[in-house]
Amino acid sequence: MLDHLWSLLDKHYSEMIEIRRYLHMHPELSFNEIKTANYIVNYYKHLGVDVRENVGGNGVVATIKGDLPGPTVALRADFDALPIQDEKEVEYKSTVPGVMHACGHDGHTAALLVLAKVLYNNRHHINGNIVLLHQHAEEYAPGGALPMINDGCLEGVDVIFGTHLWATVPVGTIQYRVGPIMAAADRFQLTIHGKGGHGAQPHKSKDAILIGSQVVTNLQQIVSRKVDPIHSAVVSIGSFVAENAFNVIADTAKLIGTVRTFDDHVRTQIEQEIDQIVKGTCLMNNAQYDYTYFRGYPAVVNHEAETKFLKEIAEQVPGVNHVEESPLDMTGEDFSYYLQHVKGTFFFTGAKPANEEHAYPHHHPKFDIDEKAILIAAKTLCKAAIQYQLDTVQDQPVSIT
Amino acid sequence: MLDHLWSLLDKHYSEMIEIRRYLHMHPELSFNEIKTANYIVNYYKHLGVDVRENVGGNGVVATIKGDLPGPTVALRADFDALPIQDEKEVEYKSTVPGVMHACGHDGHTAALLVLAKVLYNNRHHINGNIVLLHQHAEEYAPGGALPMINDGCLEGVDVIFGTHLWATVPVGTIQYRVGPIMAAADRFQLTIHGKGGHGAQPHKSKDAILIGSQVVTNLQQIVSRKVDPIHSAVVSIGSFVAENAFNVIADTAKLIGTVRTFDDHVRTQIEQEIDQIVKGTCLMNNAQYDYTYFRGYPAVVNHEAETKFLKEIAEQVPGVNHVEESPLDMTGEDFSYYLQHVKGTFFFTGAKPANEEHAYPHHHPKFDIDEKAILIAAKTLCKAAIQYQLDTVQDQPVSIT
Amino acid sequence: MLDHLWSLLDKHYSEMIEIRRYLHMHPELSFNEIKTANYIVNYYKHLGVDVRENVGGNGVVATIKGDLPGPTVALRADFDALPIQDEKEVEYKSTVPGVMHACGHDGHTAALLVLAKVLYNNRHHINGNIVLLHQHAEEYAPGGALPMINDGCLEGVDVIFGTHLWATVPVGTIQYRVGPIMAAADRFQLTIHGKGGHGAQPHKSKDAILIGSQVVTNLQQIVSRKVDPIHSAVVSIGSFVAENAFNVIADTAKLIGTVRTFDDHVRTQIEQEIDQIVKGTCLMNNAQYDYTYFRGYPAVVNHEAETKFLKEIAEQVPGVNHVEESPLDMTGEDFSYYLQHVKGTFFFTGAKPANEEHAYPHHHPKFDIDEKAILIAAKTLCKAAIQYQLDTVQDQPVSIT
Amino acid sequence: MLDHLWSLLDKHYSEMIEIRRYLHMHPELSFNEIKTANYIVNYYKHLGVDVRENVGGNGVVATIKGDLPGPTVALRADFDALPIQDEKEVEYKSTVPGVMHACGHDGHTAALLVLAKVLYNNRHHINGNIVLLHQHAEEYAPGGALPMINDGCLEGVDVIFGTHLWATVPVGTIQYRVGPIMAAADRFQLTIHGKGGHGAQPHKSKDAILIGSQVVTNLQQIVSRKVDPIHSAVVSIGSFVAENAFNVIADTAKLIGTVRTFDDHVRTQIEQEIDQIVKGTCLMNNAQYDYTYFRGYPAVVNHEAETKFLKEIAEQVPGVNHVEESPLDMTGEDFSYYLQHVKGTFFFTGAKPANEEHAYPHHHPKFDIDEKAILIAAKTLCKAAIQYQLDTVQDQPVSIT
Repeated sequence: MLDHLWSLLDKHYSEMIEIRRYLHMHPELSFNEIKTANYIVNYYKHLGVDVRENVGGNGVVATIKGDLPGPTVALRADFDALPIQDEKEVEYKSTVPGVMHACGHDGHTAALLVLAKVLYNNRHHINGNIVLLHQHAEEYAPGGALPMINDGCLEGVDVIFGTHLWATVPVGTIQYRVGPIMAAADRFQLTIHGKGGHGAQPHKSKDAILIGSQVVTNLQQIVSRKVDPIHSAVVSIGSFVAENAFNVIADTAKLIGTVRTFDDHVRTQIEQEIDQIVKGTCLMNNAQYDYTYFRGYPAVVNHEAETKFLKEIAEQVPGVNHVEESPLDMTGEDFSYYLQHVKGTFFFTGAKPANEEHAYPHHHPKFDIDEKAILIAAKTLCKAAIQYQLDTVQDQPVSIT
Repeated sequence: MLDHLWSLLDKHYSEMIEIRRYLHMHPELSFNEIKTANYIVNYYKHLGVDVRENVGGNGVVATIKGDLPGPTVALRADFDALPIQDEKEVEYKSTVPGVMHACGHDGHTAALLVLAKVLYNNRHHINGNIVLLHQHAEEYAPGGALPMINDGCLEGVDVIFGTHLWATVPVGTIQYRVGPIMAAADRFQLTIHGKGGHGAQPHKSKDAILIGSQVVTNLQQIVSRKVDPIHSAVVSIGSFVAENAFNVIADTAKLIGTVRTFDDHVRTQIEQEIDQIVKGTCLMNNAQYDYTYFRGYPAVVNHEAETKFLKEIAEQVPGVNHVEESPLDMTGEDFSYYLQHVKGTFFFTGAKPANEEHAYPHHHPKFDIDEKAILIAAKTLCKAAIQYQLDTVQDQPVSIT
Repeated sequence: MLDHLWSLLDKHYSEMIEIRRYLHMHPELSFNEIKTANYIVNYYKHLGVDVRENVGGNGVVATIKGDLPGPTVALRADFDALPIQDEKEVEYKSTVPGVMHACGHDGHTAALLVLAKVLYNNRHHINGNIVLLHQHAEEYAPGGALPMINDGCLEGVDVIFGTHLWATVPVGTIQYRVGPIMAAADRFQLTIHGKGGHGAQPHKSKDAILIGSQVVTNLQQIVSRKVDPIHSAVVSIGSFVAENAFNVIADTAKLIGTVRTFDDHVRTQIEQEIDQIVKGTCLMNNAQYDYTYFRGYPAVVNHEAETKFLKEIAEQVPGVNHVEESPLDMTGEDFSYYLQHVKGTFFFTGAKPANEEHAYPHHHPKFDIDEKAILIAAKTLCKAAIQYQLDTVQDQPVSIT
Repeated sequence: MLDHLWSLLDKHYSEMIEIRRYLHMHPELSFNEIKTANYIVNYYKHLGVDVRENVGGNGVVATIKGDLPGPTVALRADFDALPIQDEKEVEYKSTVPGVMHACGHDGHTAALLVLAKVLYNNRHHINGNIVLLHQHAEEYAPGGALPMINDGCLEGVDVIFGTHLWATVPVGTIQYRVGPIMAAADRFQLTIHGKGGHGAQPHKSKDAILIGSQVVTNLQQIVSRKVDPIHSAVVSIGSFVAENAFNVIADTAKLIGTVRTFDDHVRTQIEQEIDQIVKGTCLMNNAQYDYTYFRGYPAVVNHEAETKFLKEIAEQVPGVNHVEESPLDMTGEDFSYYLQHVKGTFFFTGAKPANEEHAYPHHHPKFDIDEKAILIAAKTLCKAAIQYQLDTVQDQPVSIT
């Protein structure tokens, strides 16, 4: 049956491109994806598929009920865009100033919609249900996944698969990884409260710029000394602001940064180490500080059996010529929340433009994908869902009879 | 004769207060002191004194020619105000929003004008000339002194005296100091050019915030290790700006600071040491930087003989009950330029409000002086000028005969 | 046949213990293992096995030629001890003051000797040759592996297996890992040449202690900022010496440290980054430095196919109840050199004393192993060699006929 | 009378040289000056002068009682040598290996002994007493001055004068300074208690070398930020010792340093700031520390009237061609203790060898003085004592009659 489904996807490839380009031209920012959500809802309504809208916000959940008994497989595509001005010179360039699909979510949605159509049209042969999770607001923490889960999108779901079109990896490559694959991405703020004064009289003040600078320098030792070197971790200060006249001693310095980790103990350890370092540095100067740590998405941690399954089926997908272990990726994804509730795996689908000149990193104003990757993503998700159901059914002798 | 002049000053004390309060209510910013300059010019014209306006900008120079032969003594008062909102609750509060005489220049001017009137009215007994230097723009480098000198204000001048009403020292105290008394006050700017990137990928970028922080930390060793400890010096960073999102690596950090010194070799040394430290710190990171050092006013360096003279005459001035050596003051003054051209001395006249509750540091929104200090300043400058002329004439046997 | 060999190993278990304890009582330091080498040589001579001594130093290589055709499998055990005073209270405590088998090499040797006897006695059924590599000087770089290889110990060898008794992992556990498993362990020396002087006159000197301290602080950013966070790396300064009177400025500071990496590009990068950081830090101070980087053993990088093979056969070894992926280990091993020449894998055999009170880390003065682990190591190496030969022979259709 | 005394000193110049060279050839270390003390005692006994030995240790105090009434003036010379190997090529080179008069104390003693002879021979004309303080152990804190004072050497003394032959200043120059002239010289020790470990496992340890390095770096801000910039101060770490193998994390780091100040409040402030900085730095790392601060000699603070007096009389001494204010000197002297008990002043007598090639700083193995300076020192002390007595007597109308 898979060959049949794949050939149908091939047949509808031009529709995928059409949908992807339409969405690309009409991007919407996270938490404001009203029209995009409507577009998706209408697509399903037009098909006749059961669809639930406003799931946990702008989320859309469609369910295809197979005629045969079997497990429920969820497939997820996100659909929000970024606050970036599209600088590409293409026909399908964004029509919204300052907003752009610079991360490939348009492609994710196109793949999932067309795949849903093909699956729905073949529902009589499907062993179980397929839940299509169209998630809003992946780009902006706290994200759309958590409210969609809280709104029941995973109810009855046995396993979940998701992919990200990955523009730094060649088309034809699929990357999997057991365990952590994408990092927990947290944010923290520090305000150093020194004591302002005249630049000529340091002894009458507490120099918040010096204290802040010492904090930045001292934070380096968290990764270099405190964290077990076999664990990956990043602590970066992205913003340091103490704006004053040249001849003063700064009263206050504001620092904002990010922490990236894969291991939850390391995450908690770093949250505490930052406090310890700032506390000691301020003590040296009898200064005060405020410290707030905001947990972003947790690490995406793939389940072992489902990931190995994905690796094996990927090797059989037409168009896939290379399946490899993904390196750890320090960026974040709220797919992590789904994997905290149900089994599953998240993988990367190579989408690098063939012309190197058009290959830009994600979130770049000239970002684009090779659209052939959309088809490969759809076929891989298709095989993952169908094969998973088949395997499950065959493992249960009772249900065969 | 001095007793006579002093009694006349006593007699005109109320006029001093009147002038001071008028100026206090009508402050003007540096380089914009049009009305104040006119006020001064008119005062002299009304007296009938030779006056030259627009000297080196808004400067005013009046000359009183004594009938007797003798040296030419210059007395200087500055008359610009500050961009500070007056927060005092007094009748003579500033009427100009955001502008205020928060440094006592109004008092300097009042003292000099009334002293000029008294001296002019007694010119028949004066041994030489008295040049009244009313200087604009002391508060804002490059200042008014240098253009006034370039415009000839010191031509023919043998010696110069100047004072600053000093609100942190009690009324009745005069502070003198041989050699350096106020610091050279310079400014510098540093821009660190790192390489921006994603906060999760420090290895692909050059962290301008970390480099800037290391610069701030490393600059400490200029004063602690590089400068001869018997010389006073300050290096302060007043502003550190690298404002970005939390999840980036900063591309650029902008630092602005001040350097205070009394010794010219130390000043030049520090200018070079900053460059050396930034160069080394950037080299560690393969980063680039821009560095600009702006020399402000040089140190005020009092001449020895004239300062000792001032100390001695000050002890005889009515109202002065304490004459002491001034500590070094890390702030700057462009009186320094006059002293690079002619002999002379600059001293502090105690002006602290008797009521401690009204005593605020210079440049404070509630700054005020004890107005009795204006009279003491006038009497001291009066004695300095007259006595200097007398001493000079008596030292020259030829002129005695 | 394996069951037969395993039962023979069981039968000779007491001999293993005897050998291990004898060696434990008579430890010899790296490159001075004369008596231990003789002991091993005599064991083989007594058996009648071909043995070559003084291989690349004190190394011993014995070869068992199977009667049947097949591949040549090398098994390696190291036999040097450490400069540590044995503080255990056991009958088999070291008799040599200050020297101790605190790393389990005595057990490695005991396992390999008895395994060799068993294999030799069954050589008529063996498909190929078994090369027993008894390596000296593992504990002290440049180590014994490289000279043994240069002296031909790997000639004709198709694959190599080695294990380390691992006292931090329970008996019954085998740890494998594809790719890097143990780190490259390098050493570096830095000498900062400042300019000495009187402690009261920092401006006339260049403070080598301050420069050295800045170097130590700045080195932290190599791991925190320069190295890709998905790669593990350690840079540690172990020694900082600048010993002087209290009232001087240090002329010189000597720093010695270690670098640990798994990836060769990261290793080279860190070697260069240290230089860059010291260069910049010295430039700040116009100081000079010497820097020498000594490469120790490279990372132990296991071959994929052989490691997976090892994992599978380990699961079938009697006494093994848990086979798991090893975490990365930051310590080093010169087994790495063998793996640069032939295929193979290095694994850990759990050897933690059952009584937690007797469990100490490697290189601890009270270090000991659970001797049952020696038997498990012997059985695993036995299975690895025999099964590898069988698999190879069966994969070659020609040899079957 | 002074002319007469000076001519006698001229006459005995060769004896001064003889004494100085004898002492130079027979130097003794601080607190071990047995023979030198005997030499001095015998000199006085031979003259017939009252002499008290073993004053507060090896100190010697002789008293010349003038026949006329007047104040008691003390003159002080120290007589200990240094643990330095004499590397000069002169006839009078030290005969004691490793011990040397590398600071001019031999010259101080020669000047005072011959001056004492001249004064004793003219005691009938002297208005008061002259106390000759020959002090041991100036070079090594806690020094000889304090025990000599405690042993009564200042009883009855009204004023004290002392000088140091100063080899960096030309012969003929006398340097005076009102108030602080030489620094308080203190010592401190820090031991950082981290937690040792393997160099590859920083996360299991607390890196005492990193903590110590951060302490050294952070201490810089005491002078750069905490101390009022108009006060001179130095904080130097002279010794940093954490000696270990390359592959460990240091358990302990030992730091020893010195603090130099002129102001007692600054001295106390720095003692506290060091503690604060180490406390904060250790807190960052959860490490512990020991801190001990040893106060050495306090600053030498000259009394104003006596210093001005010295300046005036110095200008009249034959051979003195330049009298100038001394710069602050960051080194210490226990003359400070005398000035805490009685009025007086300490000054520098230029003693730089005419041949620049022979001019080395104090404490240098080739240190020497121009011996003519000994005569100038003797004449200046002579004038100081005699003139002070005369002035005192003349100021007291009653005693004149």
